[in-house]
Amino acid sequence: MRPPPTFAIAPSFLGVAREPAPGRVQEGRIFVAGIPLDIGTTNRAGSRFGPHALRHASRMLVDGDHPTHWVRPADHGLRDVGDFEIAMGELDRSLEMIERQAAAFPHLVALGGDHTVSLPLLRALARRSGARLGLIHFDAHVDTWPDSFGLRYGHGSVFYHAIEEGLVDPQRMVQVGIRSPTEKSVYDWTLGRGVRILGAADVHERGVGWTVEQIRAVVGEGPVYVSFDIDALDPAFAPGTGTPEVGGLSTWQAQTILRRLGGLDLAGMDLVEVAPAYDVSEITALAGATMVWEYLALVVTGPRSPLPVAGKPR
Amino acid sequence: MRPPPTFAIAPSFLGVAREPAPGRVQEGRIFVAGIPLDIGTTNRAGSRFGPHALRHASRMLVDGDHPTHWVRPADHGLRDVGDFEIAMGELDRSLEMIERQAAAFPHLVALGGDHTVSLPLLRALARRSGARLGLIHFDAHVDTWPDSFGLRYGHGSVFYHAIEEGLVDPQRMVQVGIRSPTEKSVYDWTLGRGVRILGAADVHERGVGWTVEQIRAVVGEGPVYVSFDIDALDPAFAPGTGTPEVGGLSTWQAQTILRRLGGLDLAGMDLVEVAPAYDVSEITALAGATMVWEYLALVVTGPRSPLPVAGKPR
Amino acid sequence: MRPPPTFAIAPSFLGVAREPAPGRVQEGRIFVAGIPLDIGTTNRAGSRFGPHALRHASRMLVDGDHPTHWVRPADHGLRDVGDFEIAMGELDRSLEMIERQAAAFPHLVALGGDHTVSLPLLRALARRSGARLGLIHFDAHVDTWPDSFGLRYGHGSVFYHAIEEGLVDPQRMVQVGIRSPTEKSVYDWTLGRGVRILGAADVHERGVGWTVEQIRAVVGEGPVYVSFDIDALDPAFAPGTGTPEVGGLSTWQAQTILRRLGGLDLAGMDLVEVAPAYDVSEITALAGATMVWEYLALVVTGPRSPLPVAGKPR
Amino acid sequence: MRPPPTFAIAPSFLGVAREPAPGRVQEGRIFVAGIPLDIGTTNRAGSRFGPHALRHASRMLVDGDHPTHWVRPADHGLRDVGDFEIAMGELDRSLEMIERQAAAFPHLVALGGDHTVSLPLLRALARRSGARLGLIHFDAHVDTWPDSFGLRYGHGSVFYHAIEEGLVDPQRMVQVGIRSPTEKSVYDWTLGRGVRILGAADVHERGVGWTVEQIRAVVGEGPVYVSFDIDALDPAFAPGTGTPEVGGLSTWQAQTILRRLGGLDLAGMDLVEVAPAYDVSEITALAGATMVWEYLALVVTGPRSPLPVAGKPR
Amino acid sequence: MRPPPTFAIAPSFLGVAREPAPGRVQEGRIFVAGIPLDIGTTNRAGSRFGPHALRHASRMLVDGDHPTHWVRPADHGLRDVGDFEIAMGELDRSLEMIERQAAAFPHLVALGGDHTVSLPLLRALARRSGARLGLIHFDAHVDTWPDSFGLRYGHGSVFYHAIEEGLVDPQRMVQVGIRSPTEKSVYDWTLGRGVRILGAADVHERGVGWTVEQIRAVVGEGPVYVSFDIDALDPAFAPGTGTPEVGGLSTWQAQTILRRLGGLDLAGMDLVEVAPAYDVSEITALAGATMVWEYLALVVTGPRSPLPVAGKPR
Amino acid sequence: MRPPPTFAIAPSFLGVAREPAPGRVQEGRIFVAGIPLDIGTTNRAGSRFGPHALRHASRMLVDGDHPTHWVRPADHGLRDVGDFEIAMGELDRSLEMIERQAAAFPHLVALGGDHTVSLPLLRALARRSGARLGLIHFDAHVDTWPDSFGLRYGHGSVFYHAIEEGLVDPQRMVQVGIRSPTEKSVYDWTLGRGVRILGAADVHERGVGWTVEQIRAVVGEGPVYVSFDIDALDPAFAPGTGTPEVGGLSTWQAQTILRRLGGLDLAGMDLVEVAPAYDVSEITALAGATMVWEYLALVVTGPRSPLPVAGKPR
Repeated sequence: MRPPPTFAIAPSFLGVAREPAPGRVQEGRIFVAGIPLDIGTTNRAGSRFGPHALRHASRMLVDGDHPTHWVRPADHGLRDVGDFEIAMGELDRSLEMIERQAAAFPHLVALGGDHTVSLPLLRALARRSGARLGLIHFDAHVDTWPDSFGLRYGHGSVFYHAIEEGLVDPQRMVQVGIRSPTEKSVYDWTLGRGVRILGAADVHERGVGWTVEQIRAVVGEGPVYVSFDIDALDPAFAPGTGTPEVGGLSTWQAQTILRRLGGLDLAGMDLVEVAPAYDVSEITALAGATMVWEYLALVVTGPRSPLPVAGKPR
Repeated sequence: MRPPPTFAIAPSFLGVAREPAPGRVQEGRIFVAGIPLDIGTTNRAGSRFGPHALRHASRMLVDGDHPTHWVRPADHGLRDVGDFEIAMGELDRSLEMIERQAAAFPHLVALGGDHTVSLPLLRALARRSGARLGLIHFDAHVDTWPDSFGLRYGHGSVFYHAIEEGLVDPQRMVQVGIRSPTEKSVYDWTLGRGVRILGAADVHERGVGWTVEQIRAVVGEGPVYVSFDIDALDPAFAPGTGTPEVGGLSTWQAQTILRRLGGLDLAGMDLVEVAPAYDVSEITALAGATMVWEYLALVVTGPRSPLPVAGKPR
Repeated sequence: MRPPPTFAIAPSFLGVAREPAPGRVQEGRIFVAGIPLDIGTTNRAGSRFGPHALRHASRMLVDGDHPTHWVRPADHGLRDVGDFEIAMGELDRSLEMIERQAAAFPHLVALGGDHTVSLPLLRALARRSGARLGLIHFDAHVDTWPDSFGLRYGHGSVFYHAIEEGLVDPQRMVQVGIRSPTEKSVYDWTLGRGVRILGAADVHERGVGWTVEQIRAVVGEGPVYVSFDIDALDPAFAPGTGTPEVGGLSTWQAQTILRRLGGLDLAGMDLVEVAPAYDVSEITALAGATMVWEYLALVVTGPRSPLPVAGKPR
Repeated sequence: MRPPPTFAIAPSFLGVAREPAPGRVQEGRIFVAGIPLDIGTTNRAGSRFGPHALRHASRMLVDGDHPTHWVRPADHGLRDVGDFEIAMGELDRSLEMIERQAAAFPHLVALGGDHTVSLPLLRALARRSGARLGLIHFDAHVDTWPDSFGLRYGHGSVFYHAIEEGLVDPQRMVQVGIRSPTEKSVYDWTLGRGVRILGAADVHERGVGWTVEQIRAVVGEGPVYVSFDIDALDPAFAPGTGTPEVGGLSTWQAQTILRRLGGLDLAGMDLVEVAPAYDVSEITALAGATMVWEYLALVVTGPRSPLPVAGKPR
Repeated sequence: MRPPPTFAIAPSFLGVAREPAPGRVQEGRIFVAGIPLDIGTTNRAGSRFGPHALRHASRMLVDGDHPTHWVRPADHGLRDVGDFEIAMGELDRSLEMIERQAAAFPHLVALGGDHTVSLPLLRALARRSGARLGLIHFDAHVDTWPDSFGLRYGHGSVFYHAIEEGLVDPQRMVQVGIRSPTEKSVYDWTLGRGVRILGAADVHERGVGWTVEQIRAVVGEGPVYVSFDIDALDPAFAPGTGTPEVGGLSTWQAQTILRRLGGLDLAGMDLVEVAPAYDVSEITALAGATMVWEYLALVVTGPRSPLPVAGKPR
Repeated sequence: MRPPPTFAIAPSFLGVAREPAPGRVQEGRIFVAGIPLDIGTTNRAGSRFGPHALRHASRMLVDGDHPTHWVRPADHGLRDVGDFEIAMGELDRSLEMIERQAAAFPHLVALGGDHTVSLPLLRALARRSGARLGLIHFDAHVDTWPDSFGLRYGHGSVFYHAIEEGLVDPQRMVQVGIRSPTEKSVYDWTLGRGVRILGAADVHERGVGWTVEQIRAVVGEGPVYVSFDIDALDPAFAPGTGTPEVGGLSTWQAQTILRRLGGLDLAGMDLVEVAPAYDVSEITALAGATMVWEYLALVVTGPRSPLPVAGKPR
């Protein structure tokens, strides 16, 4: 059967079948879930509609093979399990609920929501894998403040806690695209723990090849998680976000970096901080959906590709 | 189980379960289908994304009872069957495909798409019911041009053909909200066939009570179809449409008129011409979704309510 | 020849032929000119693009007869002469240039630009007609401040000067839609000169019929000019303007009032303060173009209809 | 000194002087405060930027007298004390902080923020006044759900708690503009406590005169609080809000109703739910600022006008 | 005479005189025509308003010389002949009409419209020139699918047919900016016919100098056509289009590539897929108009410059 | 005390204390002033709201140290003195008023307004310093036309006059980002006076390192002024401006260039042509505010840092 035109594709990520409920999980697949939580944000709100926007934008990526990996991620056991339940107006309780729901999935790709969601996702994943994770963190901000404008677990403090709680191995953690104003003490703490910080200007001036080398050198062989805050991209490429900073990455840079991370032991991903009310013509949502698609293409062509290719392409 | 907040409701109309395919129809229910066809439009395009927008906006209407009929339409056998298939760039063939797909449903509510879709829907329904239909037509335009800028079956000529083909009984047809520039010959032809035209100014000056009386007097006892072109509403209330005309109805007027049509033998509905690219903050999509919800509330409280109320509300 | 679809209509007002230059004026016609001057505005700028937007929006009104007067204004000797020349950054000199250019036209409809343009237009017309003019002034503001934030001839002081210079007869002047904050002294001066002020709330509560009676009683028999500031309309209907005030007229009210002014000795019109950068989906521009179209329909059906109907419709 | 043009007015409400800190309160004045809290909202977020937008929009109302009361609210002891401090991501603690800060002010006008802020404001005011308050509540929603999607104190449950805690006297409480889907049990509970509900359709069909009579009859003689949720207005007039519902009030209706509430014993006000990310060209913010200005004009002309008129107008 | 400010420039491309009708063609000139056809598009519609937007945006390029070629294209025999006639809702018949109208012009620059228009333009040009054309094709998509979502001649299949019909010599065809998901079979077919594909990432990493060398090597000496789909540019630079893909070219890259194609035997151009409803602040339209202006500057300075420079610059 | 979240920061540039009036100036500080003048612009208006937008956007830069200079500009004696007074509709008189007000400040950073404001600022500064200034001029346009569409002192002629009046030393003047259409005579005049022109394409192809070298070589040792027209940036990065030109700088390029100008004798700055009505999600305003912040960071770390670091950070 011929695929429908993009405007008629079913509202799930990459148009894949939607699991009826998070409960019934089949082993060996990759699961996409939305997490519409945004009360941990400190400037513009609205990423609660990120999952919706990312799914809608992903229709552009349904038809055709990835142009360098020559795979279709949707054909390799991908499932969209809908949105996680959260507690309205209660950040801490929401984090617990997210962790509990995430625990069921062997390989989860989360569509945020604000960056706070990474903390419970890392908690669930670290517990499941029994080891500290490597981390590739795309962002304009280090997110290693001890608190976020007074909020212990907020979108600016997730990686402080991820390190302090032993979820992430700071020696295997690299940040890409950093450029916001930052207290020097926070920056120094981060470096002091062993985190490698690649500023946006480094990527611009040294190139994506150099950047990929740095990332690979840092994360090495073990399992690695990818946390992609859409504000790693420049506001020209991603205006629809809560805490934009100029001088950021272009989409081709981020996309090319991701494409060259083949062979890593990828353990999960989140794409956070897409705030559609500030987007224009879906360009931010499309950028976010494309980064997820790049990640998925890596996974399905990788050393631990989750499932044999489905019998026939759609 | 507690309903999710509005931003986490599943992407179907009113959040109801989505039928896996148009084929498997259960008797006695009301079916919602999207028809993403907009190549029959003569000014701004884009209503192909109308179904998506109407479904997303309908999340505002999921939780709670209708405040005058005290029912929840979603609890009364409503199903969302997804979008009809159409033929890209081929208007005439698309109309045939729509007619064929519509034929399967006993009671269909269509989310357009441009107004051209009403013609195959009426063809399917008239064939099924075996009689000419009454018609309540909300619009800024009479849509009884013999052709639409040279296009035989276009969004401006649907009711010319519906009358000429004997699908609709012009003596039981009433138009509400009319106000566009119109050739006098077209206007006279319409009146000459017996159609009752209620201009937008009539509604404004004589009130909704008088308007309801006129409508009920025209359509009488038999089966009646409701075709609601969102441009019946003023551009202030519905900017997101293809051929706006100022001086139109407000949403409260249209809503109140619909609410007072209880007891009619309602046979089907379409809500057309929502073009999201021209909308602002979803107000047009919300207006459209609300009109559909009003229609559904009428049906489920009406003389031929399709199904007993479901055992338990969600 | 079949008219083109709306999106292919030539960029002149109502798609009429564009005069090659203002110089060659033929007697007995109605002329439309743009005046892209907006440096007299005191809040948001941008009405310099009003002429462009009004012409583009007028494409919706090209095809078909007026639905109550049953005429097509474009067929009755209407000409679009393009934009008047102005002096960048020099308000006073621009006013002189506008007056000089306007003097050539027997019946001019001006597309602003900010309200300052009304003053030179009235100067030119009063000189031509040799008598003080009646004035129907649609606006949210009285525009009879002695100066406009220190600017002698600004968009808030035009009618103070029009009265003081004897261009307008204040006893035959009526203002419709007034509602902004106003110094009481300015309000009292205006009333004291004999101007009749109909607030927006008066129109809402007493109706358009009463409003039309008041207007006709005030302006009486002599020549009358219509100055329509788009902010007479509510921001919901006309967001694209410089100094919006809530509580304004709806388009149907303004349109209906204009329709009932048949038989007046109409001498000219301006439609001002459309600022497209603040518009949404052209609704303000369409409202403005429609008001001009209503005026033109009045003129061509009126006692001094400028020309016999053209031999064949387009 | 000549007032500046609107675009150069200082960023405080109505351009009044800003108090350096909430601490230093002078008796007998009216205080405006922003409350940028929006984590109690259940659909679109973003009213945290409401205070900013309302202040910016209020520049349109700085210059000139109120056109029916002939006063300038800014000249009568009005002070803008800036924004209240809140706790990021902690709703309950934020409510405590708001209550504590509000307690210092004898007459407070709050710029929200979502509707949750009304609860601590009423707690502070009821404690200060020692009696239950009358309440005029403009809204599309009754806001008397026992909880708000599981959230005890959320923007949909504030008046349930205000009644249950004895802050408001339900016999002296009236709701204006109600029209959302609502569980019948919630509606019945509200009526059962004695609250008078005036639906939006009632206002449209019976008129503002009738509405004012109802309101005055309900609230009677004692102190009365005004809580104005901007979604009482129709989305055409106020698109910039979190939970829009079509069929709402127009600005002229709300404005006229407020104007006719002179002589009441007004004790405080809040204007909530303005979400600028969804606004267009500031029309929602302007509508909100105008409602506050109407309230202030009532207060300064009322029986307990807070201060003698300042010696000289600005 | 001094040129008018940009906001008062006549609505033709680069403000040049508009030919009264396509019939009267003078030899030796360059002609610009709009083609408002967009029913061949498979995602977002709306490029029917592309011609209007491109003309309006071109006002920025009217005044001043090209800053590297030091010419003004508008002074070298450029004419804007308005829009081609098309058949509403009938794609195949529209293609025939476009071909017939295009046949009259020796050197045509077409403003689309969607990419489907390139096929009849190439048919007309290939017939006129009697030889297969070289092709420089800027795009995110290869557009060599055998059909476009089931549509034989759609915006995704134009170059499949152009090659199959022998209009274009695939050995002299180069694609620049390619990056969308693509079935490998389609990609391989394209390469197999001899087409050179330069991905967007190639341009980013190898630079514009390398890209220009590749293009010149491919197209060689014979006549060459330029087809510029605006989605070759990144959505950050061109959001206003139907099928955006992230990772695209920046405007400076595309502009610099075009500037360095001097000396080629340029035979015609189209600029397609500008969809203004998705544009922001005209940036897409300006990018498109600038690419056309770059092309025109190349032509008038090239080996077959169409006409001697006009006697005096405007 | 903990800083407030970004959405609650006081509306001054970088949230610093606002001086009560321009009169009371303390020596040794850096002063920020808004200049809401935009009647010298020749295309889109609206930069009168630039000061407001730049201040609002600067809230993103309040919290944290500059990530390469490790300073907080707001802690080093920065004051926001509000907006300068101008004369409505009178450009020449406004220029005099700006010059007079600017004269009071030893080191001024002006937030425009259109580029015309640079002329009176340079007049005031040149008089104060008693010598011709070096100039680093970021722009898409040379702004050395003898007049601006007939306007002697307009936004396109400021540097012609600055050179002719001896305010600027053309041998120490460098332009960065130039790319608009320009009459060759104007370009040649500029070069002939000794100005160094670095086109946007030069920056793209030769890199920021080369660009910085050129700038430093041109401006040398003496006092140097920075005039930053936001249209130096590409419209993708800065859509909110009056005369956009494609092919411009990215924010990272401009930002990096500024960062490497340490050690220069910086004498003042203006950031002009931000027109918020054309901005999207504040990205232009944020880019502008960030450029000012980069300049301020340079100054406070420079050879003539205005004040010792304040005792305690905020």
